[in-house]
This record gives sequence, C-alpha cells and structure tokens, in this order.
Amino acid sequence: MPEYRVPLKDMQFLLNEMSDDQSSSDVSNEDLFFILEQAARFAEEELVPINQDGDTNGCVFDNGKVTLPAKLRDAFRTYAEGGWMGLSMPEEFGGQGLPERLSTLVGEILTSANHSFSMTPALTMSASRAIIGHGSDELKDTYLEKLLTGTWTGTMCLTEAHCGSDLGLIRSSAEEVSEGVYSIKGNKIFISSGQHDAADNIVHLVLARLKDAPKGIKGLSLFLVPAKLKNKAGVWNKKNEVHCIGIEEKMGMHANPTCSMSFEGAEGYLIGKPNRGINAMFTMMNEMRLGASLQGIGLSERSFQKSLQYAIERTQMRSLGGVKAPEKEADPIIVHPDVRRMLLTQKVLAEGGRAMAQFCADLLDESHQPGADKERVELLGLLTPIAKGFLTDTGLASADLAIQMYGGHGFIKETGAEQLFRDGRASTLYEGTTGIQALDLLGRKVLANQGKSLLSFTKLMHVLSKKTSSEQLGDLADTLSGYSKEWPQLAKQVGSKAIGDFEEVGAASYDFLMYSGYVSLAYFWLKMANVAQEILDGKRHPNGEPFDRDFLDAKVKNARFYFERILPRARAHKDMMLAGKASMMEITESQLIG
Amino acid sequence: MPEYRVPLKDMQFLLNEMSDDQSSSDVSNEDLFFILEQAARFAEEELVPINQDGDTNGCVFDNGKVTLPAKLRDAFRTYAEGGWMGLSMPEEFGGQGLPERLSTLVGEILTSANHSFSMTPALTMSASRAIIGHGSDELKDTYLEKLLTGTWTGTMCLTEAHCGSDLGLIRSSAEEVSEGVYSIKGNKIFISSGQHDAADNIVHLVLARLKDAPKGIKGLSLFLVPAKLKNKAGVWNKKNEVHCIGIEEKMGMHANPTCSMSFEGAEGYLIGKPNRGINAMFTMMNEMRLGASLQGIGLSERSFQKSLQYAIERTQMRSLGGVKAPEKEADPIIVHPDVRRMLLTQKVLAEGGRAMAQFCADLLDESHQPGADKERVELLGLLTPIAKGFLTDTGLASADLAIQMYGGHGFIKETGAEQLFRDGRASTLYEGTTGIQALDLLGRKVLANQGKSLLSFTKLMHVLSKKTSSEQLGDLADTLSGYSKEWPQLAKQVGSKAIGDFEEVGAASYDFLMYSGYVSLAYFWLKMANVAQEILDGKRHPNGEPFDRDFLDAKVKNARFYFERILPRARAHKDMMLAGKASMMEITESQLIG
Repeated sequence: MPEYRVPLKDMQFLLNEMSDDQSSSDVSNEDLFFILEQAARFAEEELVPINQDGDTNGCVFDNGKVTLPAKLRDAFRTYAEGGWMGLSMPEEFGGQGLPERLSTLVGEILTSANHSFSMTPALTMSASRAIIGHGSDELKDTYLEKLLTGTWTGTMCLTEAHCGSDLGLIRSSAEEVSEGVYSIKGNKIFISSGQHDAADNIVHLVLARLKDAPKGIKGLSLFLVPAKLKNKAGVWNKKNEVHCIGIEEKMGMHANPTCSMSFEGAEGYLIGKPNRGINAMFTMMNEMRLGASLQGIGLSERSFQKSLQYAIERTQMRSLGGVKAPEKEADPIIVHPDVRRMLLTQKVLAEGGRAMAQFCADLLDESHQPGADKERVELLGLLTPIAKGFLTDTGLASADLAIQMYGGHGFIKETGAEQLFRDGRASTLYEGTTGIQALDLLGRKVLANQGKSLLSFTKLMHVLSKKTSSEQLGDLADTLSGYSKEWPQLAKQVGSKAIGDFEEVGAASYDFLMYSGYVSLAYFWLKMANVAQEILDGKRHPNGEPFDRDFLDAKVKNARFYFERILPRARAHKDMMLAGKASMMEITESQLIG
Repeated sequence: MPEYRVPLKDMQFLLNEMSDDQSSSDVSNEDLFFILEQAARFAEEELVPINQDGDTNGCVFDNGKVTLPAKLRDAFRTYAEGGWMGLSMPEEFGGQGLPERLSTLVGEILTSANHSFSMTPALTMSASRAIIGHGSDELKDTYLEKLLTGTWTGTMCLTEAHCGSDLGLIRSSAEEVSEGVYSIKGNKIFISSGQHDAADNIVHLVLARLKDAPKGIKGLSLFLVPAKLKNKAGVWNKKNEVHCIGIEEKMGMHANPTCSMSFEGAEGYLIGKPNRGINAMFTMMNEMRLGASLQGIGLSERSFQKSLQYAIERTQMRSLGGVKAPEKEADPIIVHPDVRRMLLTQKVLAEGGRAMAQFCADLLDESHQPGADKERVELLGLLTPIAKGFLTDTGLASADLAIQMYGGHGFIKETGAEQLFRDGRASTLYEGTTGIQALDLLGRKVLANQGKSLLSFTKLMHVLSKKTSSEQLGDLADTLSGYSKEWPQLAKQVGSKAIGDFEEVGAASYDFLMYSGYVSLAYFWLKMANVAQEILDGKRHPNGEPFDRDFLDAKVKNARFYFERILPRARAHKDMMLAGKASMMEITESQLIG
C-alpha cells in the first residue's frame, strides 16, 4: 500500500452527486476530475516522498535569510509553474477561474500529502482574495498576476507578541510619507512563509495603525508591503525595509518557516479605506479559516490511511470471533472491533468533513459573485467557524488515533504517525483558536442574527430527513430531524440566559461549537447515504460514471457508524453547554491558584 | 509563579482526610507529609529546571553505550543516594517500608516535574516487586538491595518487534546450561532505560521461551539477566552478553533512552516456575500500570499549572462581564469563561485522579500483605485498567488543553507546553494500550467474574450517595446514585450480547472503559466534596492541621464543575457502547480500503 493515495473515488462521488448545483461552472465534472487526477499525481509523486525529509531537515535561518528544505522549495516551484496556484481565482487576474469545489479538494490533498507544503499556496491565495476584494486597480494590476502564478508569494501579518486573538491591541504603525505611500513600522510574529527562498518576492499584508487612528480594532488599516520594490529601471530587486529576524522552533511543520518580521519604515500601500483594515482582513481570514478546515479533513484522511495500512499489515492476537488468518501466527489487527472503531472514526470524520467542505465551496463560489444571495453568504458565515473549529479539532483526534493504532511504534519518529499529529497541531491555533471560532459562531453567527442562518441550515436538515424514503435510513432520518429541532432550541436557551449576562455565551460557546459540528456532519452523512442508497435502489441515476456497489454500500454503512458511534457525543456537549457559567465563574482566581 | 509547584495542600488533604484507614502505617501522617515536602523540594529544585534541557539534548547512543543528559544522570544519582528509590518497598530488602500512599504521591510528583526522569525509578521498583513476589531467596539476596537503593536499575524486557500486546508470540529463547543457569537469546525492543550511564549495573527481567515449552503465553518464563556478572574475585564487572544495539528517535521523552536490546547467549536465572513467566510478569505489569496512571495525573497537574500561569499573565480582550483590569490594555485571559473551562477541566482531572490513585495505593498496600482480602485485591484489579487507561487518556487531554491555552505560542518549543504533550504521549501506549486496558477491564475484570468487583465498587458509590447529607451536594449524590445502578446494568447488557459473540466485548470495551473512568472519578469527587463540606459545616474535625475555607470551598465547587462539565461525557460513551458491533464489523476489509 502506498503511504497516501488520494481518495479519488470519494471525491468523484462528491463532485458528481453531492453538489446541488451541477451547472455553476462552464467546466464539466469530467474535466474537473481530470484536473483533480493531475493534482493527485503531483501530491502522491512529489509531495508525499519529501514529507518526512522536511520534518527532519526543517528550515534554516541565517542572517535574515531563510532556506527551505531544498526538495520542498523545488516542489513549490514545480507546483507554481504547473499553474496550480490560482486554480479557482478569477481569470482576469491570471487565475484559472475553476470552481472552489475543485480547489477545495486540491487544498485537502496538499495537506494530506505534506502539511508544511500546503501553507504557502493557501496563504498566497488568501492574500490575493483580500487584494481582489479591497485593493485598488493599481495594486491589482501590479501584484495579482505574480501572486496567482506563484512567482511571488503572500503572507498575512497580523499577530504581534502581545496580541493574537485581540487584534485591537496591534501597535504597528503607518504614516503617509507621500501620496499613497506609507511608512510601516512594527514587529510581527508567527508569520508563516514570511521569508523563504522559493519565490522572487514576498508580498506582506500588514495590519497597522495610522497616526491618530481610533483605538482598538476600528483603528486598523491594511497595507500591502512587498519585500522587494521596483527599482528605477523597473526591476523588482530594490530591498524594502522588511526584515526576517528569526524563525520559531516548533512542535511540527518544520518545513514551513514561522517568521518574526520587523518592518522598519518599510514602504507600503493602503488596501481599502483607512481604518477599515479589519474588513479587508476578514476576507482573508475567512478564506484562511476554510483553508484550515481542509487541513483538518486532510489530516483525518491521511491519519485514516496511515492507520489502515498498519491495521492490515500488523498481526497481533486472534480475532474474538475465531481465527481469521490461520496461515499466520496472529490475525491482522483490522479484525479487532476496537481497531475498526478507530479506523472508522477517522474515515467518517474525513469523508463527512469533505462533504461539508464541498458544500462550503459552492457557497464560497456564490459569495464571490456580484450580488450574491445574502442568505447564502450568511450561511457560509455560519458554517465557517464550525468547519474551522470542529474539523481541525477532529482532525487532530484522528491523528491521535493514528498514533494509538501503531501502539508503541506510534511514538517512534520513523513510522511517521507522530509527525502527522505534530504537523497538524497548529491547525486549532492559527486563524483563530477553537475558542475564538466558538465565540464567533455562537455570538456573531447565531445569537447576533437571532438564529436566522442557523434556521436556514436546520431547514435543510429537516427537508433532508423528510425526503429520506428508504427504510434502511429511516431511523437516521428521525434522529436528524430531532436534531434539526433541538439545535435552534438550544441556541434559544443559551441566548435567553445570555440576555444581560454575556459570560453565559462564553460559558456555552465551546460545547455549542462541538455540538454544531457533530450535528452538521450528521446532515452531510445522511445526505451522502441517501444518494448512495437511491443509486443502489435504482431510484437515482448517477450524474457521471457509475459507482461500484461496494463503494455505495460502504457509504450507507459508514453513515450508520457515524450516527451510532460519533453523533452521541453531541448529547454530552448539549448537557455541558446547558450547565451554565456558575461552576466556572464562581470560583475565585485565588481559589484556582490554591 | 514557579514553573511547577507541588500541590502539597491537596496532597495533605488526601493523606489526612481521604484515606479510609488512617492506622495502616506505623508512620504518622505528619511524618509522611514531612517526607513528601522533601520530595517536593527535590522535584522543584532538581528536576524541573533540567526538564527542557533533557528534551533538547536527549540521550546519545555510541557504539553500544548510552549517555544520558548529564544533568539528568546526576539528578538520578542524587535521588538514589537520597534513599528515595525503595520508599514503599519492604524494609527487609533494603526499602523504607513506607505506605504506597506516599510513594504514589512521590511518583506523581516525579512525572509532573520531569517525565523522562520518572521512568527509571518506576521501572526499577516494578522489577523489584516481581523479584520479591516470585524470585528465589538467592535472587532476592543478590539483587534487591542494589535495586532498592538505586545502585543498580531494572528493566522489563517483554516487547519484540513483532509482538507488543500479543506476548504469546515472543520468540526469545532460554536454555538451561548448568543448574539454575540459563542462556538467553533474542531481541527486545522498546526497553526503557535498557542501557544508560547512571547506575553500575542494569538488571533485565526478560520474558523468554524454554526449549519445548508450550506455544503461546503459557510457554513463557521470566528470567533475571544482569548486564554485568560477578567475576571470580566477587566484583560485578564481568560483561554479560547483553547488548544495546540502538536507541529510538521518539516524539518525546528524549531524556529517557528507549533501547533495542540483543541477548546473545546471556547468562540468566529463572524467576518463579518454568512456563509461569506470565504470572510474574503480571505482578510487574500491574505495578507499572498503576505507575503509568500516575503519569496521567502528573501530566494533568503540570498542564493545569502551566496553563494557569499563562492565564494569569497573558492579557487579551476584555471580560464579557465588564472590564476587570482597567489599568491594563486588556484583561488577563483567566477572566474568560472558556479559559476557565479549560483550566478547571485540567484541575478536576488531576485532583480526581489523585484521589483515585490514593485509593488504589491503599488497596496496593493491602494486596502486598500476606492473606490479603480477596475482594479488595480484586477491586484493585478492577480499578487498575481504569486508572491506567482513563487517567493517561485524560492526562493527554489536559496536556492538549495546555497547548490550546497558549494559542499560537503553544506550538512553539520555547514555551514548553508542547513538550508536556510529547513527553506524555507514550503513556496511553506502553504497559498495554488503552484498547488493551479496555479489554482487560470489560472482559477479565467485569464479565469474567460476573461483575462482582464492579458491584463492590458501585456499592461504595451507593453508600456514599446515601450518606451525603448536605443540601449543597444533594443533586450530585442523586446523580452518583443513578450511575451506581446504571453501571452494572450496562455491563449486564453488554455481557448478554457477548454470550456467543465475543466481538461484542471488543466493540463496547473502549466506551465502557471511558464510561467507567468518568463515573469512578465522580465517586472520588463527591467523596472529596463531602469531606470538605462536612469540615466547612463543622460536622467533621480535620484529622490533622485545619484547612483554609477557600481550599475546602473550592473542593465543593470543583466537584460541581466535574459533575456538570465533565461527567456528561459518560452519557455519550453509554450510547456508543450500547450501539453494538454491527456498524463496525459488517463493513468488509475491501470496503475499508475503498
């Protein structure tokens, strides 16, 4: 078995059968799938083999210069020159104009294959989206094509040593020195790909504060600050005052440099309006959050495959149901129910998450259209923190199960299981920790709009459960229907407690997020099982090539596993979220210290 | 705040107020506490400061020799020479004869302070227990004193490359070459402290197979194989044919060497009877399992303290309940409910686990007595896989929360949060994975004895809930009473399904283990809260020094947090365990592969 094989069959199922709108793109699903196969080949052949090497050798910082592991640098050049960077970016700026459904799958593939590698493309595209959404025509003309072709790469410079979640505390400053030109000063930390040797130039998007700007988040502006400027001869080789002053030693992701950046009167240009940087930043941030959710899915998938391989090869003990491999001294561990529990947990998290990401991708395409339907845009707003918070959390759980699957061998570097966890560990931290996603979800996306977006999603759940006709899935449909009613009720209950006491929001938010994640994935699982069962029953004709019955039957069975073995966790989160804040807030700080 | 401060107040509470039998030892609690304070000082002053250094520098393997980080080696010598090794071992063999309640606390302290350090003492004592329990007088006379004083150290050599959980597959062989002297051949892996430079000699306990022994686990014998033998002059410097052929590169625990050992006709001596090695091994294994449970507790405690420190120092955002630190630009994050949820989760897991470990320690002392009560020994047998499986699992969850607490900084090596997770990660793998503990619990400890031991524990739960008189704790007592009835019922339900289909045991085992863990900790939390409330109400007089009201009040509040915010997870595990095997076993292997 290869180390990682792109789950093309499942991806084809999603492309062909799960997208509600099969006509949104000019490109046929066959063509999309053909492109996907090329991406798969690139990932399997170029990225997987260098993943362990990147972890071992890491990035080197020397006197302001960062050197990537050579193989990773070369792979990035191959990727960029292959035209992969701007896959779903507008053609007018040099992108390929393909639907997000495709780039979402490619994004997942990249993380599965090589988490460190996936960072630079994702960041560069998010930065590009902010420029497209908020930049002047001049900025667009000057920078986008270079970014979308990967000649240059992009970063997000938000975090400072004293502020991560709380961007209102940002101290970096900007002062206009000539018309449209600003001098940027300040120190930023945790800048992924802030310096490296795989591109000719690096375009930093920097949050900073104009002189006399209001305090807090409403006084932030976003600036584009290239590492290199154009010289008088029109060549981009004039050094800007942008310095990498060090890279972090991290738990994982060693092949992607996490840079400390110093802007020392660097030349920069405003993106969007003064003091409205947070708006432009959110464009970037939301795309990055969806990008991080793909890391969660990719991690679950890779962890599943890693575990599966061992479960087939490793022999240990006899099956409780009688000897299965009499020719061997023990049975392969895949015969043991608890091993299957771990494998299927990883599998249903990966496939359920992938279906959710496809749904978000369609919404994202819609949201990029002028005059996009507000309800659909808000639905994406609701799902974004769920996808980011829940899918990265469960991605790590899958990686942890991979270590567990390997037993003592999982703790050994050579097997590669522990690298998956170490590389993925940042995914619940960056682009807003899980706690931040939870507050965003419950506070802004649910309570602040009186549950409107939530109701538009639970309506989909309700409709799906009603139209589930097959007997096999009847009990799952009933369960989903129950949750479609309960979920908004829970929001209401927490909401009424929170009137006059916002701390009740904070006390319930994490459990509300996790509840929401488990319940949303139940929707996507029943949706997949429904389609599969309908095809099996001859009630539905596949949109593309037919699927083998084994695949469809597995979808139905795995849906049941999800409902029986994963979804019950939502019950615990329900009880916990309803418990209220008292048991957390009544204890004093000095009692905590003891 | 110091990096780690031994939770002496909580430990004193357990020593003085929570042990049912205050008279089991000749030594007063005051004296025990005095010794504990010395252990605390050693850990805080000698072990904490070298913990990060050990991770960075690790062990070095060169031509068969293993060098520990120098500071760790020195610390071990100081520890051994201070007489700490044999704290609770019998005085007749050179130990201190102190109760397990004390050594259990010391064991926890060592892991909290320095996980890598804690390994060698724990392994050496487990090996000594096996020699005490099963060795000949000659072996006892020759080896025990050296081991109990830490002049020499011990190992457990069980695992081979092709067998970990399934010891029946062991291939290492033994052949009697002269009376009582055996030649041992074979390769062992994952031997913690298999070679190092902190002791004069290393005593390996090796599972091997005598010629013509029965196949499987019933053909294993246990041998004592010293790395160095006595020469003719009576000096222990004659090299035995025991070779370290390499050490593993691991995710963490870099300062403890994980050795591959080659026995090449090494001289060894039988411990116990031929082909009964597994009995002697289980003595050692059960002690090591309890030892690993202390690692889980120590990890929760250290993770709590690590998180608390940051939660107090780090300022970010304003409290949802109004500004708390107007003099600062943001409030310390400890004001946020979700931060407190994380902190309290770690705290209740640490303190609840500690109470459980104290209970097990008393049982362990009883079990070492000749003519120990069978019911009590079996109760310890029931609690051992729960303590090992559940407390290491939740210890890792606590460490993961510490990373989460630090946000992006948690991913950076310098902060030390991620080291806690990496060091602790092996705890759910060695001494039997969580899956193995789960099978042991449900299969051997519950179903195989018709739930007898389980009922003896749920009876304690029932009695406690009945005797809980204070109004404040009434609802918690009712909840516990409900679980005391439900738990054996669940065992029965799973048991009836398993008649004729053992796979149902495997399908339910993990969730049964986790359910059992959450429910047992609820017992210990109510027990602690009860004592605290009784003292607060003046209904109970403290056995030793009085406790401050803040401490007692916190115990009561934290019990409520446990019941409201942690215990509900048991509900999810209940639903999952009752779902049965179908959703896992009906899917074919080829469907899993896809």
